This record gives sequence, structure tokens and C-alpha cells, in this order.
Amino acid sequence: MTDLKATYEDVPEKFKYMAGRWLTSQIVCDEVPPRAHPLGPNNKVIFSPGIVTGSSAPTSGRISVGGKSPLTGTIKETNAGTGWGQSVAHLGIKAIIVEGQPKGKKFWLLHVTKDGTKFLPADEYTNMGLYEVYPKLFEKFGKKADICGIGVAGEFLMPNAGICFNDIDGRPSRFSGRGGMGAVLGSKGLKFIIVDDSGMPPSIPIANKELFDQGRKKLTDALMTHDITKPTGALNSYGTAVLINIMNEAGGLPTRNFREGRFEGAAKISGEAIFAGNKERLGKDLYNHNCSPGCIIKCSNVWHKPDGTEHVSCQEYESVWAFGANCDIDSLDATGELIRLCNDYGLDTIEAGGTMAVAMEGGLLPFGDSKKAIELMHEIGKGTPLGRLLGSGAVITGRALGVARVPAVKGQNMPAYEPRVVKGIGVTYATSTMGADHTAGYTIAPEILGVSGKVDPFIAMKAELSRNFQSSTGFIDTSGHCLFIAFAILDIASGFEGLVEECNGVLGVNWSADDWVNIGKGVIKMERQFNEAAGFTKAHDRVPEFMLYEKLPPHNTVFDVSEAELDKVYDF
Amino acid sequence: MTDLKATYEDVPEKFKYMAGRWLTSQIVCDEVPPRAHPLGPNNKVIFSPGIVTGSSAPTSGRISVGGKSPLTGTIKETNAGTGWGQSVAHLGIKAIIVEGQPKGKKFWLLHVTKDGTKFLPADEYTNMGLYEVYPKLFEKFGKKADICGIGVAGEFLMPNAGICFNDIDGRPSRFSGRGGMGAVLGSKGLKFIIVDDSGMPPSIPIANKELFDQGRKKLTDALMTHDITKPTGALNSYGTAVLINIMNEAGGLPTRNFREGRFEGAAKISGEAIFAGNKERLGKDLYNHNCSPGCIIKCSNVWHKPDGTEHVSCQEYESVWAFGANCDIDSLDATGELIRLCNDYGLDTIEAGGTMAVAMEGGLLPFGDSKKAIELMHEIGKGTPLGRLLGSGAVITGRALGVARVPAVKGQNMPAYEPRVVKGIGVTYATSTMGADHTAGYTIAPEILGVSGKVDPFIAMKAELSRNFQSSTGFIDTSGHCLFIAFAILDIASGFEGLVEECNGVLGVNWSADDWVNIGKGVIKMERQFNEAAGFTKAHDRVPEFMLYEKLPPHNTVFDVSEAELDKVYDF
Repeated sequence: MTDLKATYEDVPEKFKYMAGRWLTSQIVCDEVPPRAHPLGPNNKVIFSPGIVTGSSAPTSGRISVGGKSPLTGTIKETNAGTGWGQSVAHLGIKAIIVEGQPKGKKFWLLHVTKDGTKFLPADEYTNMGLYEVYPKLFEKFGKKADICGIGVAGEFLMPNAGICFNDIDGRPSRFSGRGGMGAVLGSKGLKFIIVDDSGMPPSIPIANKELFDQGRKKLTDALMTHDITKPTGALNSYGTAVLINIMNEAGGLPTRNFREGRFEGAAKISGEAIFAGNKERLGKDLYNHNCSPGCIIKCSNVWHKPDGTEHVSCQEYESVWAFGANCDIDSLDATGELIRLCNDYGLDTIEAGGTMAVAMEGGLLPFGDSKKAIELMHEIGKGTPLGRLLGSGAVITGRALGVARVPAVKGQNMPAYEPRVVKGIGVTYATSTMGADHTAGYTIAPEILGVSGKVDPFIAMKAELSRNFQSSTGFIDTSGHCLFIAFAILDIASGFEGLVEECNGVLGVNWSADDWVNIGKGVIKMERQFNEAAGFTKAHDRVPEFMLYEKLPPHNTVFDVSEAELDKVYDF
Repeated sequence: MTDLKATYEDVPEKFKYMAGRWLTSQIVCDEVPPRAHPLGPNNKVIFSPGIVTGSSAPTSGRISVGGKSPLTGTIKETNAGTGWGQSVAHLGIKAIIVEGQPKGKKFWLLHVTKDGTKFLPADEYTNMGLYEVYPKLFEKFGKKADICGIGVAGEFLMPNAGICFNDIDGRPSRFSGRGGMGAVLGSKGLKFIIVDDSGMPPSIPIANKELFDQGRKKLTDALMTHDITKPTGALNSYGTAVLINIMNEAGGLPTRNFREGRFEGAAKISGEAIFAGNKERLGKDLYNHNCSPGCIIKCSNVWHKPDGTEHVSCQEYESVWAFGANCDIDSLDATGELIRLCNDYGLDTIEAGGTMAVAMEGGLLPFGDSKKAIELMHEIGKGTPLGRLLGSGAVITGRALGVARVPAVKGQNMPAYEPRVVKGIGVTYATSTMGADHTAGYTIAPEILGVSGKVDPFIAMKAELSRNFQSSTGFIDTSGHCLFIAFAILDIASGFEGLVEECNGVLGVNWSADDWVNIGKGVIKMERQFNEAAGFTKAHDRVPEFMLYEKLPPHNTVFDVSEAELDKVYDF
């Protein structure tokens, strides 16, 4: 970006088999100094589709975004489901590396087609919501285009600015949200990367088509069979918010800034309530849609207003929880509006909701006051000093407001699962290379959902469980599949075989499942080395102090995983 | 504070010889969990007068305040010059340990006299400036009382809240400012500790009176002789702000948020200008006064308004610099008002000025706009959301405003000496256990002032120099003397002997100068162990990245001290 130049480079031999998180983290480790300021000239943003992304592999439209995070100060990989990554893959691009920094304060967009790249001024698209901008961009660049970009939060360089991608219907709604990578893109003056794969083949090259097809069928069968992932199954009917009632029942739904584990208004903001509410307002059953082409699970919902018009997509579990139970708000219309504003301004919903709850704890607004919460979201959108503070995330807001109860690890707010009840996810939060992140090692599967066997959530010996999930996730995030295939492949052995065969088929290798999981393990180990060089130690692999002494109702438990157990996770 | 109870305890044998920083840091290391939240129930605030504080030793009215810092997350020792510590010592109290946390949001004051302790409600003194409160307190508790307390910044739990003490004339102007210890006191609901030593002997017990008197005379002679410390010498005439012209000449006066090393308005805010301005407004020479009883150096000035009435005390070098050169403000009336507001609201001036400069860098106000800067200080005083942000210090403000150029180490803004020009002070900033802190190892003495020999400031091999200064400072901060005795004792050998003999005399020991410096070294080593357990590594012993690549005019130098050299400081 220093001199507004885009160049193509051949893929170095070293990177031949790498893609997705494996590649983004490798490039960050190779090229970004661990002590670089996240918003300075030496940080980079790396985009890379997964190994099978752009093929016909089911549910594989993921794009990994890597760099050093301005929210956490750690390495960051945050992936999203969108056709954008598939288009990048179709264009034969293994990764886009954004580096350098322009002198002035102008914003630019990069247009990428089969004919090459072009920088265009983007200032006309700044200082407005993404719901207004995206249609303008589709109008200018065509309906076949896919859009990646930042909202005003990224322009303001806010630590909670995400990177936004379009869903299949062109909505600005799919995010590489966590960790503030939108601010890094903003610091480089890059507002949008618009990709159009017109004229390219509909699939990436496949080295061993027979093996790939065999794997694809196995994985597809598993996804079509499993209760959670099958059509009209839990995710397709109720979306991820199906978890609201389940987590509430378990007493592990963080409520009012992690003061309680059960929310009396849970049923009103559950996935079932979304389904029922849409049915009432539309007069028919509405099943969910896929966020990217080729997804079988189709978990992305659309929430409608009382008059039946569209309000927002998507009322995701973690988003609804963040603004709902965690803020003492029991209205889907309110959570829907707050989520819509996150999309519009380009913010991560988990961090934004967590920040709001901390602001409530700090007395900036009362718990449950959705009207004031919406007003405060607009402050963020306007970039007022108050908005700048709230756009900085929960930890910074907590420090400014003198709040000692900030449920965060390594600068990132905890998602929608209470670690004092579900100990394994607490181990993941504490030890993940990403800060508190449920997707880094989703032990909720066995601890709550009984996927791949049932594990007691209250048992504190969870280092091995979390390590296994973190390693496998390193593989899945490299493959380009959505993490949700995990439900099916953990329970159905042939599904896991299929995943391995797909990847081997694309690359023309014959690696075992163990090889691939070891690659995943290698990814998190490499990420951890980056973090160590950036100044992180075992002392950062801890949940916040208050969770060690404050008993969480209704189970009245504390986080009792020993430090020795936590330190075992990366002892390999 | 949990149940509002003050108890006296005998001094454990272990602590027999300890005092000042040695004792506060020891108690923090023994009793505060390194990962405790600074504002949570497990942090403590420890006050301890130095070994000779409360005796007739010259310039020894220092009080050490220790705890875990909400600004830096490190251990913190921040000492102030005030009669308060002497009164505590006269009462036979070796340390006051404030611990626990009350349930409600009420504020209390603790009254300590020879007859015991008493808690009284203090809510009537909240939400108003300290210039209004202190006279009320003197009226109620008598002119013989000494006051320690927090302003509204501490009530709001702001990370930049200092702890304020009265000077000899009762002004709320002497601060344990750095590191936000005022917020820790605020988090414990303790607004004031009022101490009255009436009825007690005028000196602490001296074990070996003869040795003490001998030492006292040697040190006094040195202070009375040295050009910097003698009556009508540099400090007594011009105050610490005598450094403005000197640092500017050296090209190491950080200007406009550390963008340049020379300020065109330096002469207007210099110590000489303070002297001349007062002379013009008062019609006579005004020499400075002592901040605490028994100080020979007397460097504390009073700035006057055009009509000859008092404006503020004290226009300290670092304070004038912070709001002056660093904010592009060249008016002593403006810096005076900004400093007065810091005193009134209970803020550290260095961090407040550094924050203002970062806010200017971030576009919140233009560089040089003193009117707007004053308005923003009032936002802090009112505790508005914007004020909360600015009260959080430079690093947090920088993160909210997306500023990559924040001149801080371990969360604390750098003081008034540019590390790209004066490399030794840069080594101290980088490696000190306190975050960027000039007082932790004041290598300016040899590098700029030619005290204890002249060392070239541009030479990068400064690990040993900084280590020696940091160790000696550990001793001086333990003795209870003001750091400014260093000028005299470094140049005049008998002065150093005197310091050692004073301490030995009070304690009844016969330790060598080496023994004492080793004690100082042991203090910083112990502090460093605390920091390591709190999660700090060598990666935190670094100056901000921009100083490695941004050349500072007029010398156009970067900070070129190698990481290996920095790591040598604590390699002992």
C-alpha cells in the first residue's frame, strides 16, 4: 500500500501445500515482527482460502484472514464463510498479502479479476454504513463480484473493527470479526477488495479427482445424516441460536456480564423463538440459508420485522447471546437491531456485546436498556470519543470505567459459554493462541452436545481434550471447511476420512489423518511461538481473576482448573 | 476495608530493617498475587516512610506507596515528598497496609493519631476538587494534620489517578503520581488518610546517634556545596524546569508527542522563564521552597498570575514539559493551569500531558490548543465518558484513537527525556520494573548534566550504567531521601558516605556502601520477579516500535540500543 502497487508472485515451494490458517499463520510468523505495532507499517493482512475452498467440497467456503491483532496483540487467524474466498481461489490466487502503509489518509479499493488488479479511490464509500455501500459496489462492479471490506469502525482504526464479506445474497453480514483485523486493513488505507472470478473455471484444480470425489461423498453423506447438520436438522431449522436454551439449561449461558449462568429471558431469544417469530410474521416455516455457495448445513438465518420485511441476517447464537443474555435484553427485535448495527458499522458482535455488558457493569447504562444500547452503537458509528472507547472492546472499556470484572483473555472478550460451568471451553479460552475464542477448540461438542461421546462439563481435567480440539481445528481451518463439519465428522468416522481424502485429493498427496492433525498441531505451535516472541507467557493463559473466587449461580462453581492443568495444553 | 477495621501489628522480624521501597515491594511480593486484578479485592496499597524519614536527615521526607499498578500491570513503587510520611514515622508506624474492599460505593477517611485510628464517612468530600477539599479537612482535623488522599480521578478508578499529599503549606500538590495507585485506593473506598503526629517526639528513634549525626553532617555539607543542590543553586532558583533549556539544547526535549527533539518555544517555558515571570509579577526575586520539612534543596516553585496572586505549585520540569513542549504549548500560564487541574482532580501530570499529546496525534484536538486541552481536563474532572478515556492514560487513549505512535513502555508514558538522543535513559525506560520512569535510573545525571563524570548520551552501550543507577535508586528510595540527593552524593564521595552512615545510624547496623547498593539491587530483582509472574518478559523491555525506525530531528537518530544490550540490564 506504500506506493499503491499490486504484484503477483509465484507460490514459493515452501508454501506449496499450505492454505487457509496454515498459510496465513506461516506468513505472519515469517514476515511480521512479533513486536510490530498492529497499526504500524510492519504489520500485514493475509487472506487465504482453504485447501478445498473453491472446489465442490461441501461447506467449504471459508476465507482465513491473518495478521497481528490490535485487540489482543497476539497472532490472529479469523475466518469467515463467504463466496469471496471461493472467488479468490477460482482466480488461482493462494493468498493476498496486504502490506505497507500509504502516506495520506485516503482510502482505496482493490479490484481483482482474471485480467489483473486495479486500485481505485474509495473515499466516496467512506463514512457510511455498509448496508448503503454494498449495493453501490454491486451496482458498479456487477452482481458477480464478491466484496471484502471494512466499515466505519475500520476507518476509525477501532480495535473491534472486523472485516466484512458478503453472504450469498450480497448482504454485508459474514465477518472475520474477532481481533480487530478491520483496523489493520484500515491502517493500510484499504477499504475494499472486490473480487470477480468471471471467466474462470468453477473449481480449483484437483490433483487426484477420484480420491477427492470419494472424500467429498463421504463427508457429504455424514453432513446429510447427522442430526445437527442435516437439512431441517437443528442448525438448518433454528440456526446456531438453538444453543440458547441448551446452554441455559446447562446453567452455562453467561448472563449480565457473566454474573449468572442462567437467563430468565432465554426462551425469548432462542433459536426456537427465531423460528417461531419468523413463522408468525411471515405466515410460514422459514428454514435457514447457506452463507456461501455449496454449504449443506445452511445455518444462516434472516430475522424479520413485524410487517414481514427483512430486519437482519444473521441472529447467530453468539451474537444474540452477546446483546441478549449478557446485556439482560430479552427481545429478538432489539438483538436484531444491535447485530444489524454491527454489520453496518463493521464490528464484531461478540466483542461489541461484551463491551456493552462491561459498560453496563461500569454504570454507563443500566443492564437491559436496549434503547440506550442502540444509541451507544450509533456513537461508535459516528466515531465520537465515547464511540471510540466502546469500539475499543471490553478490556479497554473496562479499564476506562474502572471495571474489575471483565471476562476476557488476552484482551478478547469471552464468547457465549461460561467457563465456570464448561471447564473445557475455559481451558480453550485461557490457552488459545487467539485470546478467548470458542472456535479455537470447541469442546462444547462433547461437554454439552454429546458429540464424539459425552464428557462431564464440570470435570476440570481438560487439557488433553482442549489440546485435541485446538489441534483438529488447526486442520479444519486449514482445509477451508466450516468448523461445523466437526459435529458430523466427530461422530461419523467416514466423514473424517472424507475430509482427509478431499484434502489429499486436491493436493495430490496421501497423508494420514494423524499427519493432518499433526499439521493442525504444528499450526497452533507456530502461532504460540509468535505470541511468545510478542511477550506472552503462561501467565496469560489464564481466565480473569474474578472467575477464581466469584461463584456462578445457579451451580455456584468457580473456575477450578489448576494452573498446572492449563500449562499442560501446550506441553507437547 | 472489607469490614472497616484498622488494626496494629508488631513489625515481623523479617521486616526489621526494611522501610520505604524495600518494604513496600517486599509486602507486595509477599501478599499480592501477581495476577490479581489491580482494582480487585486482592490488591493492596502499602505506605511506608523511608529508613531515615522522620529523622533530622536532610531532604528525607519521602513516602513510598506500593501495590500492583492499574496503569502498567506491574508492581509499583511511587514516592512523594511531603510531611505526611514524616508524621507516619513519628507515630512509630513502619507501614500502613490498605487491603480488602467494602461492599457498597461509599467513601471513607481514616484518621490516625497517637491515640489510635478512626474511620469516618468521607462522601461529603467526594465529587469536588482537592483545592476545595484540603482546606475543609485542615479546618476539621487541624493545621497539624497531614493529608493523603485521592481526587475525583481516584473516585472514578481512572488508571491515571495519583495519590495526593500536602506540601508544607498544605497545598494538594505533592503526588505519588505515576501508575494509578489513586485508583487502587479508590477501589478500596478509602478517600483520605489523615495523620497527626501531635504529642509524639520530633524524631524517630535513632539506634546509633553519633554515627547518624556524622552521616547527616556529611550529607548536609554535600548538598549545601553542590552547584545543583545548594541554596540559590540551580534547583533552588529555577526548580527542576531548569532542565527545559538544557534538554532542548541537547536536542532531547520530546516535542509534539515525540516527533521532534527540540521545541522552538522552550525558552518561554523554562525554569529561567518561571523565575523571570514571577519576578515580573511579584516585583522581586522568588526562590523556591521545600515540599517537606527538613529539605535543603528546596526546588518546589509557586507560579503566580499576572496580578501577583498564586496560581499553582509546582511547575515541575516533567509537568511543564508534558503539557508544554510535548503538546506544543509555549505558555507557562497554560501549563500552570493544566498542572493545577491535575492537582485538583488528582492526576499524574506526566501521564496526563502524554495522554493529551496522544489525543492531539489522534486528532481529538490540534497540537498547541491549550484552550481545548483545558476543556478536556475538565471532562476528566467530570468523569464523562470522554474524560474516562483520557483519564486512562496515553496507551489506552492511543488504542481507542488508533494511534500507533504512543511513546510508552509497559503501559506508562515516557517522561521528558527522548530515548533516541539520551540512550541510557531509554534503557531505563525499557527495562525498569515500573514502566517508562526516569526516576527509576536517572542516567540523565552523567549523560546530560555531567554528574559523576560525563557520558556521551548517544553511545548505545548503556546496560551497565542503567543497571547501576537502577540499583542505587533502589537504595535511595529505601532510605527515604529524595532522589535529588544523587546529584551531590555522586559527585562528592563524603556525601555518599553520609547517606550510608545515616541509614546505619538509624538502624544500628554497620553495613557497607556495597551492602546497601546490593540491597537496592535486590529490591529491583524482587520487583522483576513479581512482574515475571504477572506475565512480563524481555519482550516488554523494549521501547515502542516507531522509535526504532522513525528518525528524530534535529539529530535524526533512532533508538539503536540492541536487544542484547537491553537484556543485559537484568542479567545479574
